[in-house]
Amino acid sequence: MSDLLWPGDDRAGDLFTDASVLSAMVRAEAAWLDALVLHGIADPGARDDLTGLIGPDDVSLVAAGAESGGNPLIPLLKLLRTRLEARNPAAAKWLHKGLTSQDVIDTGLVLCLRDTVSRIRDDLAAQVAGLARLAGEHRSTPMTGRTLTQHAIPITFGLKAAGWLTGVLDARDRLAAAADLPLQIGGAAGSLAAPVALAGSPAVVRDLVETTAATLGLPVRGPWHTARAPLTGIADALVTCTDAWGRIANDVLVGARPEIHELAEGTVAGRGGSSAMPNKQNPVLSILIRRAALAAPFLAATVHAGAAAAVDERPDGGWHVEWATLRTLARRTVTAGAQTAELLAGLRVETSRMLANLAAARPGIDAEQRSIAPEAAPGEPYPGATDEIVDAAIARAEEPPKC
Amino acid sequence: MSDLLWPGDDRAGDLFTDASVLSAMVRAEAAWLDALVLHGIADPGARDDLTGLIGPDDVSLVAAGAESGGNPLIPLLKLLRTRLEARNPAAAKWLHKGLTSQDVIDTGLVLCLRDTVSRIRDDLAAQVAGLARLAGEHRSTPMTGRTLTQHAIPITFGLKAAGWLTGVLDARDRLAAAADLPLQIGGAAGSLAAPVALAGSPAVVRDLVETTAATLGLPVRGPWHTARAPLTGIADALVTCTDAWGRIANDVLVGARPEIHELAEGTVAGRGGSSAMPNKQNPVLSILIRRAALAAPFLAATVHAGAAAAVDERPDGGWHVEWATLRTLARRTVTAGAQTAELLAGLRVETSRMLANLAAARPGIDAEQRSIAPEAAPGEPYPGATDEIVDAAIARAEEPPKC
Amino acid sequence: MSDLLWPGDDRAGDLFTDASVLSAMVRAEAAWLDALVLHGIADPGARDDLTGLIGPDDVSLVAAGAESGGNPLIPLLKLLRTRLEARNPAAAKWLHKGLTSQDVIDTGLVLCLRDTVSRIRDDLAAQVAGLARLAGEHRSTPMTGRTLTQHAIPITFGLKAAGWLTGVLDARDRLAAAADLPLQIGGAAGSLAAPVALAGSPAVVRDLVETTAATLGLPVRGPWHTARAPLTGIADALVTCTDAWGRIANDVLVGARPEIHELAEGTVAGRGGSSAMPNKQNPVLSILIRRAALAAPFLAATVHAGAAAAVDERPDGGWHVEWATLRTLARRTVTAGAQTAELLAGLRVETSRMLANLAAARPGIDAEQRSIAPEAAPGEPYPGATDEIVDAAIARAEEPPKC
Amino acid sequence: MSDLLWPGDDRAGDLFTDASVLSAMVRAEAAWLDALVLHGIADPGARDDLTGLIGPDDVSLVAAGAESGGNPLIPLLKLLRTRLEARNPAAAKWLHKGLTSQDVIDTGLVLCLRDTVSRIRDDLAAQVAGLARLAGEHRSTPMTGRTLTQHAIPITFGLKAAGWLTGVLDARDRLAAAADLPLQIGGAAGSLAAPVALAGSPAVVRDLVETTAATLGLPVRGPWHTARAPLTGIADALVTCTDAWGRIANDVLVGARPEIHELAEGTVAGRGGSSAMPNKQNPVLSILIRRAALAAPFLAATVHAGAAAAVDERPDGGWHVEWATLRTLARRTVTAGAQTAELLAGLRVETSRMLANLAAARPGIDAEQRSIAPEAAPGEPYPGATDEIVDAAIARAEEPPKC
Repeated sequence: MSDLLWPGDDRAGDLFTDASVLSAMVRAEAAWLDALVLHGIADPGARDDLTGLIGPDDVSLVAAGAESGGNPLIPLLKLLRTRLEARNPAAAKWLHKGLTSQDVIDTGLVLCLRDTVSRIRDDLAAQVAGLARLAGEHRSTPMTGRTLTQHAIPITFGLKAAGWLTGVLDARDRLAAAADLPLQIGGAAGSLAAPVALAGSPAVVRDLVETTAATLGLPVRGPWHTARAPLTGIADALVTCTDAWGRIANDVLVGARPEIHELAEGTVAGRGGSSAMPNKQNPVLSILIRRAALAAPFLAATVHAGAAAAVDERPDGGWHVEWATLRTLARRTVTAGAQTAELLAGLRVETSRMLANLAAARPGIDAEQRSIAPEAAPGEPYPGATDEIVDAAIARAEEPPKC
Repeated sequence: MSDLLWPGDDRAGDLFTDASVLSAMVRAEAAWLDALVLHGIADPGARDDLTGLIGPDDVSLVAAGAESGGNPLIPLLKLLRTRLEARNPAAAKWLHKGLTSQDVIDTGLVLCLRDTVSRIRDDLAAQVAGLARLAGEHRSTPMTGRTLTQHAIPITFGLKAAGWLTGVLDARDRLAAAADLPLQIGGAAGSLAAPVALAGSPAVVRDLVETTAATLGLPVRGPWHTARAPLTGIADALVTCTDAWGRIANDVLVGARPEIHELAEGTVAGRGGSSAMPNKQNPVLSILIRRAALAAPFLAATVHAGAAAAVDERPDGGWHVEWATLRTLARRTVTAGAQTAELLAGLRVETSRMLANLAAARPGIDAEQRSIAPEAAPGEPYPGATDEIVDAAIARAEEPPKC
Repeated sequence: MSDLLWPGDDRAGDLFTDASVLSAMVRAEAAWLDALVLHGIADPGARDDLTGLIGPDDVSLVAAGAESGGNPLIPLLKLLRTRLEARNPAAAKWLHKGLTSQDVIDTGLVLCLRDTVSRIRDDLAAQVAGLARLAGEHRSTPMTGRTLTQHAIPITFGLKAAGWLTGVLDARDRLAAAADLPLQIGGAAGSLAAPVALAGSPAVVRDLVETTAATLGLPVRGPWHTARAPLTGIADALVTCTDAWGRIANDVLVGARPEIHELAEGTVAGRGGSSAMPNKQNPVLSILIRRAALAAPFLAATVHAGAAAAVDERPDGGWHVEWATLRTLARRTVTAGAQTAELLAGLRVETSRMLANLAAARPGIDAEQRSIAPEAAPGEPYPGATDEIVDAAIARAEEPPKC
Repeated sequence: MSDLLWPGDDRAGDLFTDASVLSAMVRAEAAWLDALVLHGIADPGARDDLTGLIGPDDVSLVAAGAESGGNPLIPLLKLLRTRLEARNPAAAKWLHKGLTSQDVIDTGLVLCLRDTVSRIRDDLAAQVAGLARLAGEHRSTPMTGRTLTQHAIPITFGLKAAGWLTGVLDARDRLAAAADLPLQIGGAAGSLAAPVALAGSPAVVRDLVETTAATLGLPVRGPWHTARAPLTGIADALVTCTDAWGRIANDVLVGARPEIHELAEGTVAGRGGSSAMPNKQNPVLSILIRRAALAAPFLAATVHAGAAAAVDERPDGGWHVEWATLRTLARRTVTAGAQTAELLAGLRVETSRMLANLAAARPGIDAEQRSIAPEAAPGEPYPGATDEIVDAAIARAEEPPKC
């Protein structure tokens, strides 16, 4: 998968590609089929390994068939069944038995979102480590504090980094709280009617659901076909990440302005150059991160709009709008997360320039200090509780996410 | 406060009105002033009771003065100080000492948002109780299950109510997780520099902050001037509420269509009538709830856009866009919450019509059952795990929110 | 009306206040009543002057009554009728005859939006004049051209101003094209059934509609109860304005950074100061304009979401969400427009600093020129078609809007 | 290109695919190179036909290289130049001379958007024709008029179709007004400095630009790197289309509910079926159209947010967020337009069911008529100005778009 118009998108690799989504849906079907066999509902002969039955080459065919039933599971299932029939008619017969399209599509989305979370977690961990290091190392590196674009009071770069870290840790907590996306199994209208009819009792269905969940490594939840908070929760968490990264990018973009020049992206051969202007070194990562932060609120809001449009036992559009929106949001967040991790790893902190800018901002920037502590010598430190704030952020960085 | 163009807005009463916001900001200033006195930073004579110094009549003046400094705290402070000087110059001198505008505005917003959460919690509790009752009472009330607007399989109204309940409980959990909004005290650039200069040490400032927090009943947190996840979190929780209510409203609006007529809003004298068409009984509450659910995703997304625009030690617009947006989102959510509670309390469930519609949907609607259990007698129940799903939802309703 | 949380909102004055909306709805009713009398449908004795029957003091009562019928017209009408009955029972009887609530509410909104457009047009004209002057005066004022935050090539400030002007002229054209909002008269379901039944023929109804439109100064259009492009069009035009202004504000905010210092807001006593930091001169207008530009896309999108939710002959929420949203968007756009006009009128262009920054950017910033014209002397002008671009923008500024 | 998660996306074919975007950018480069040769700036030997130098197989490589410079043009150019050098060093040397990345990317987007408009225009024309036919044929087909979900007064299906038509015609006008997207040529900072340095005078650059525009069939405009109203205008027009189609879909979805059953999608083999529930015939097209209408406001708003974030002579993220967003919006609008055209072509109007539902709604639904015309016989027609409204809509359908 490539997205020429979202530079950096290839960082997301095969996450949530059409092929990955197909594969996730097949895994969901396979886990249910296994459970039917394991609990003696389906014949032992129906056991089969669906892996490899469907591959990337099937994407076009399934995608082309998706409109007709309004979702990609219907053509996928047809294809799966056809291929299975040839080698294992029992499996073909029991495949998908008791499930509804939404069960498989939702579970497939959940599996892809779990991979998304996993990817972001790694990048968040790298960011957290990098920021804790920056905050600690630069706790006493003086720089100009700016509010409303103007010089305010002296701060240190470590304080700024601690602030960035706080935002990233908040995002990490939010993601942890939203990450545990559940299995979806509800049957045609969320009553588990067909599974119970198949299995003979709700108790056996509970076993089937638990087995399926265990196979897929997903938590169990009652049917949530029209109660979409799990998905809005993850969307909100993703945009909380891009908010935090966008703020860092904004600061780097200001700091990278040549007249300020306090921060610079790490130099990577070929990056940030301009064909016509060899003088330029564009802060490309920050620009692309900021771009993601501009877009993400609209994507998460779209997922909410879909949730709010739920109606009946399966919505007439509110459900369908989630799929591609979640994928786009997921890939962009993963991309921005990797870019932010790299940005922070390579960030160049121009401490001498920070000092020079601060000196140039004097004496104006010392006005508050002079007014509150008139006895202070010019240029006397004005750290406030910077050490405590930095230490607290670093300490929090070492704790596990709060969820 | 009235909002002619958002019918029902008066349900939010004085929540987050300009006068309430002023009052909240004064409470923040007062708590800090108290702390300064209590910890011996300010003279004992600076102790004062600011209550009553500023009232609703001051709103226009303060609002008119807000543009000049870009925020309402500056003119409020000027007014407070002027009035205080007359009776207590020491208090006037120590007022706001060490704080920055953002400390007071953010804390004022937090106090208003806490009231918002409190109001919504009450309505959520009422909704939860109502829904648990509906789910329990109607667990065996047969009705038509519909997916993608079409007849799917028979369900019961209790199952539908349990689904509504799940959405409301999810919203309740989300709100509980986001509710604990913290005090904001950071000083001009988030380093607590002025407070430390005043108080002599970070340790004393910690005491000051803890005392202030205790007075206001707010949790302590390090400065979060540019790490806005607390505010995006509450915004996300509010839209999770409207999502859940919007879904209920959508179902009621379908059920209230005369051709379906399975659900009706409670009759209230004068409500839902049409001047020209006495035959009409419009499902007004549901319409207004649905309206809120349409708007809320955009409002919460605006708060994210503001957070993502954070830069420097105080943002140049990203902060300012939050205030009115949060107020609008808060009042609308409170209004919709009260309307939903009332909707559920009065909801008329037309069980005979549900039965009749189901009968009319036969035999088509029995197709799945016939295919999976061909031996089933026509019209034989097809409940699946409805009882278990209903019981689980009711059990969860009785637990405290998970946060 | 004041909005403490949207500093500057008082610039919008009584535009679209609850009282103004009430007044606009009364004018709509009055124009229709006049038309009924004029065309001999209503008794001559039904002629009445509704002016003054309803005033600002009625807002609370009407607002409180709005929920019951789901809109503010129903309680307004009741109040109007009661007051009218006392002095002119014939007028009371004919009042609103043939109309539906939506006719009056939509027309009331249209009247308020027309006032909005008129206000913005004046500010756009002032901006255009100011920008044409800036572009002309500074067509040769050298400054640093920046792309992706980095130095690119030398430009002039006149070129930048011409670019700002282009954005404002585009907004002006867009507003002109969307401004002509039509009267809404359609009766209960958009068929004009009641008016025709009253008037005896469609031809007479056309006369009634034309007379009403002429009285109100609005164009005629067939019923558009559920075809909301007139409203989405104006919303899109408003956000096109805030886009253009936001871009100007962004540039001023960069230029006002002390390290760059090429642009500054005009000095106004008391504006932009900081209580604790007398050194600061915050670019308050730009900050508040940027804030509006952040919020507006979400508001216009909400109007689209409402339009897209239209259903039946009057929507169940999609209509209701428009009203307050349009008001908020209108007031904020008017406020931002006035702020932008003032910003431009007072803008300080620090030409010597522009020159100094450009000198400091050399020789890097000359790289493109050197590469394309190696024979050019260092610092030789590199204007390109700046004069032509500036002249074209100025010429367009003098033309009437294209719509 | 396939999008498994947006069923129906394949209707958009190769519109705006990565390969199409590449091809459009190559066409922009080729047109400029031709102009350079034609006007004697470049050597005659630099003339070359770039067609075929870059193909779909290059997408991955270019996409992978896009992050480094922050846009896809840089790697594309490198590839083009490499391939050109082998066969025509003069062409390689003159390629892109005087242009900036943004010139080529913007022009490439414009070319793809022009194709988008062209596709949508065809579908709009088909819709208009279909709706004019429906409005005319059913001008007297009685049905229930519904407001706020409840029965209001009798209308005809022709009136409803005329209302749909009005929305579609409004969208057509809006698209026509926004369609004429211009060429982008401005050079590094929008001053045309490099082109003028190359060509020797602004007058010759004007010729170059006009020749390039003529080759590409695009209108000329001054540089608009940071004045993005052309793009927000087309985005607004696209969402105006989806608004209009969404409203039609909403009505079909209500009409297709089995209890109402007044409208049905045309039967297409295999479409709308359910694997488990053969009784179902889901209104798939309407569901997918409604989905697009839910999402589109957020996408257009993102384009506005990008425009509002413009700063400097090329924005640091505001520009980059437009590209993929416009593509997604374009493909989804094209898909929804084709689906709507097909929906309308096949729409089944169940006139007998309309009549039966209307009969069942009596006598309540006649209340307005009875009140306004008490002498009317029960069931007497109550058409109002339906004929005139229908005729006006049909007449407008036959006129060219107003822009």
